[in-house]
Parts: sequence; C-alpha cells; structure tokens
Amino acid sequence: MSLTQSILEGNRLSLTRLLTQVENDSSDGRAALAELFLHTGKAHLIGVTGAPGTGKSSLVNQLTLHYRKEKNNKVAIIAVDPSSPFTGGAVLGDRVRMRDLSGDDGVFIRSMASRGSVGGLAKKTAAFVQVFDAAGYEIIIIETVGAGQSEVDIAKLAHTTVVVEAPGLGDDIQAIKAGILEIADVLVINKADRPGVENTERALRSTLELAHPTKRIFRHHGQSMSVDVPEIDTVMWIPPILKTVSTEGKGIAELADAIARHAEHLRQSGDWADRDRTRLRSELEALLQDELMNRFLGDIQQKVYDDVLDKVIQRDISPYDAVRSLLNGKMK
Amino acid sequence: MSLTQSILEGNRLSLTRLLTQVENDSSDGRAALAELFLHTGKAHLIGVTGAPGTGKSSLVNQLTLHYRKEKNNKVAIIAVDPSSPFTGGAVLGDRVRMRDLSGDDGVFIRSMASRGSVGGLAKKTAAFVQVFDAAGYEIIIIETVGAGQSEVDIAKLAHTTVVVEAPGLGDDIQAIKAGILEIADVLVINKADRPGVENTERALRSTLELAHPTKRIFRHHGQSMSVDVPEIDTVMWIPPILKTVSTEGKGIAELADAIARHAEHLRQSGDWADRDRTRLRSELEALLQDELMNRFLGDIQQKVYDDVLDKVIQRDISPYDAVRSLLNGKMK
Repeated sequence: MSLTQSILEGNRLSLTRLLTQVENDSSDGRAALAELFLHTGKAHLIGVTGAPGTGKSSLVNQLTLHYRKEKNNKVAIIAVDPSSPFTGGAVLGDRVRMRDLSGDDGVFIRSMASRGSVGGLAKKTAAFVQVFDAAGYEIIIIETVGAGQSEVDIAKLAHTTVVVEAPGLGDDIQAIKAGILEIADVLVINKADRPGVENTERALRSTLELAHPTKRIFRHHGQSMSVDVPEIDTVMWIPPILKTVSTEGKGIAELADAIARHAEHLRQSGDWADRDRTRLRSELEALLQDELMNRFLGDIQQKVYDDVLDKVIQRDISPYDAVRSLLNGKMK
Repeated sequence: MSLTQSILEGNRLSLTRLLTQVENDSSDGRAALAELFLHTGKAHLIGVTGAPGTGKSSLVNQLTLHYRKEKNNKVAIIAVDPSSPFTGGAVLGDRVRMRDLSGDDGVFIRSMASRGSVGGLAKKTAAFVQVFDAAGYEIIIIETVGAGQSEVDIAKLAHTTVVVEAPGLGDDIQAIKAGILEIADVLVINKADRPGVENTERALRSTLELAHPTKRIFRHHGQSMSVDVPEIDTVMWIPPILKTVSTEGKGIAELADAIARHAEHLRQSGDWADRDRTRLRSELEALLQDELMNRFLGDIQQKVYDDVLDKVIQRDISPYDAVRSLLNGKMK
C-alpha cells in the first residue's frame, strides 16, 4: 500500500513519516502532498494565538478534550513557536500535553520550533494542515505565540482565529496586541478567576471598538456585544469576548460553541469559500514564485550570477540594473 | 536639479518626497533608488529591538543625541512597528521624539506602521536604509518591537543589533526572547535603576550561554563576560551586557562605545563585508523573484490563470500540478 493510501486509511505511523518528509521538503513528500491535496477541504482550521502566560496551551488541551468527548471529532494540533528556536519550549509543551491527551488515537500533536524564516514556517504549516485534513482530522488547531506580524501571517491560514488574553499581563502587553485583535474572530480571557479580569475586559472592548468601528451601529440601537447572532450572522461577525478558566475546564463548552457559530457564519455568508480561495491563491503564487526562481537559477551559470552580484556589492550597478541584466539575455 | 542630486546634496524636502515614493513603490521611486544605490555602503546600520515597556525609544533618542554631540554624525531613525497597525503608537512616539530632537537638521526620523506583510516591511526598510545611506547619514538606527521572527528578519539588515531588556517584565516575557537574544550583538538592560535588575541580568547571562556555548571556554579560563575585547575581536564577538537608565542619560556613552567596538570587530574580522554581501544577495534574489513573477503574470492570460486556480479550489488538481501546467506551455 502506498504511503498516501495508508494515511488516508488513518495509519499514524505513515502520517508521522510524511510529516517529516514534508518538513524536510523532500521530493517524496511533495509527491505525496500533491496526491493528498485532492482529499482536503473538509477540516475546520482554528488558529489559537496568545502571548506566553495566557495559558493558551492548556486552553487548547481542554478544547481538544471537549471535541473528543462531545463531538467525537479527530483533532490535530500544530504548535508553531517561531520565536523560541532553542529553548525547547515546544517540546516541553508536548510532554505536558502527552499526559492529558496520550493514548487517544483521535488526537495528533505536532510542534514546529524552527529557525527558518516566517515564510518558510507558514508554508510548512500550510502543508501540515493539508496532510491532517486529508487524513480525516475534522478539527485542526494551529497554535501560535501571539506577538507580531508573523503570527498574523500564520493565522491567515485559519477559518476561525481565537485570540487568548489573561488578566494582569500589563498595559505594555496590551498595546502590542492591537494588530492581533484585528484578526480575532473570538476573544478569550483565560485565567478569568484572577484579579484584574474587569480591566482586561474593558481594555479589550475599547480596542475592539477601534478594530471594528461598525460596532457602534449596534451600540446605537441599544444592543450589547452579545447581539442576537443568528439575526445578523450573514451580515457581519462581531467577535464575542468569552471568559474561561482552562485549568478547571470552565467556559470551554461556551468557547467551542462560539467557534461553531463562527464556522456557521462563515458558511452562510460565503466567507468560508472566500477564505479557502484566498488561501489557495496565495499558496499557488508562492509555489509559482519558488518554481520560477528555481528554473531561472537552474538555467543561469553560477559564474554569471556571481559576477553580477559582485558588481552590485562594488556599487557599480544597482540591484535593479542587475535584475534587468540577468533577465534580458542572461548575460553581462 | 534632479531629485537624487538634491538628496545627495542633503535636501530634506527631497528626501521626504523620495521616502514617500519608495513607500508607494512608484516607478519614479524605483528609478531614484537605482541611482542612489551607487552612493551607498558607508553607513553603520544599527538595529535596536526590544519589547514595549523596555524604554527602547527613549534609549534610541539618547543614543542619537550622543552621536550628534560627541561625533557630529548625521543620524537617521527608522521606527518599524509591524504589530501596531492602527494604535498610532508609532506616530505618538514621533511626537515625543520631536520634542527632544526637533530643529536638528542632522537627525531624520521616519516611522513605518504598516498592515503589510513582514516581507513587504523588510523590503521597504531596506530601501529606506539605502536612501539614508546615500544621503550621507553615517548612523542609521532601525528600531523594531522585539517580539518574534519578523523582527529577526528586519534585524538582519543591521550591522550591529542591540537588544533592549528591562527589569520586571516577567519570566514569561523572558522566555519569548530566546530567538531575539540569538541575534544580539549588544545587550542592554535599560531602566537599570529599577528593582529586579540582578534577576534580569542573571536570566540574560544564562540564556546567552545557551546561545553562545563557546562562552564556556572563557569561563573555564576564569575570565568574565567582559573579556578584553581587543585581544579576541578578530576571533569571535561575545555580546556584552550593559546597563542604562536612558531617562537620565546613564550608560549611553558606554553603549555607543560597545557599538563602535562591534563595528571595529566586524571590519577586522571581515564580517562587515560578509554581512553586506549577504544582505545584497537576498535583496537581489527578492527583486529577481518579484520580477520573474511579474513577467510571468504579464505573459499569461488572466482567464487561464483563474481556470487553473478554480481547478485547485475544486480539488481537481493539486497546487503542484497547477504550477507545472502553468509553467509548461502556459496552457490549461
């Protein structure tokens, strides 16, 4: 039986092997991905992003347990931690997880702690998502440390993005989150049994107002944030703010519910298909760009390329002129 | 007089105009950049990165004042804040700065708060650096919020990367910094008059040891971190840890001195030329990739491209097959 066939039938060992091949960008891995791609498009991709200290990993564990118990969904977790290349944080996280989720064949956890570029990381995450999707995982959680544009790029992969906050992380921390809040479909204040939860909620609401100015319309009509979602869900989605205590399992069912409602909203509004299209378009473009570059570099003599680069370094020609001279006749 | 000529002669208005053209990626901007490039390669690029709350901006201001007063260097500051697209943080920072540095023609400050991709931001920062370099700014400071791989990518532009910490930001925050520490040439504990400074220093030293395991050699010989730098500087650079109180101007001269020693080390070891080469090589590759893609998309009919994309979205063909079919004959 082929590797892809074996993965489609749910073999975990084959799945692990392919993930490694994909991570190494081997030609076998690429071939398998191409086959598996035709079986994708079924999973709900959930991005969970939050700073260290928000308890995001424990929240993901609880959410996973919920999907297992209540829905019997197969769940894959991809933990992306681009900022900790050598602390081993991701590995430690896995060990803690193993305790909660081990022995369950319906859960697959994979971390990526990489020194690679953000682009490389996003590309590998996208490939992993396709593998899990094809392998029949209905829920794929992409967990990232929420701290910058890189996470925004990775979160773009998800259908639903959950942003996790916690009380008492300080105003400085809140300030950095504005860019992250903008991509939030669901907001969670975890550790909601801690002091300062009201302040965090107030700060989130006012930042949300900046990010979604249209919210004021609803305010004007005297409606609260928890507007009747079914009534407006084909028009717009207002990110709800939920409170959880993940260590005690509090608020997890409500969170799963909000995520499910968001998926429903995406489907009804047509945004689900739009996000799918946008994601695949950028993937196609990235592959095209890589392949164009590979073919170009394969055609040109190394010496010619190096000579042009040397001229740039000597400031004899600009990089723009270098590109023109390399592309027009591939000489000089 | 042409725009570039006027910039080379130090006209600030022309400089401002070109930066806007470059930001909008206009064809005039590109043409001017190509001309100006031939006049680059003289500036010392200093990356300053640190989380919000470390007082990094105030440190950059003090450092700038130092370069103005002590060295009479022209200083350009590029403030990159990819994570705060709409809080106006960058703009506010500029206003505070204007108070300290306004009226000084030898200082130019430019912020970039952008929703664009990390790649786009890094590209624009690189272009800005070239403009300032050609315009005769001897010191160019690239200030970024240190919070992830995106900042690492932007920091790669610099000859010398200064990482700013502060006491009391919490262990969670420290954890995220490992990836940033790895790129540090100089470490600064700012706000060093605050309690907890010893803990921060201890944490930094132990993380440094992970990032630079060779340091142990020096430990073994009974030497401290502040080894006699001139003796070893052509062999390796061990990032010094400095303490500053930027609000009082304390430690600024020592910081400027460490940065100057690092530049000297780069020049003696040949790393200065290596970093220049690496930077220009990636810039050339990025431009090549863009241009290859532009030419390809210009050649192909929109309908053909869309049809292939539709097949991918229908999961009739994989993105890999799509690329192959687009590149081989550019049909179907």
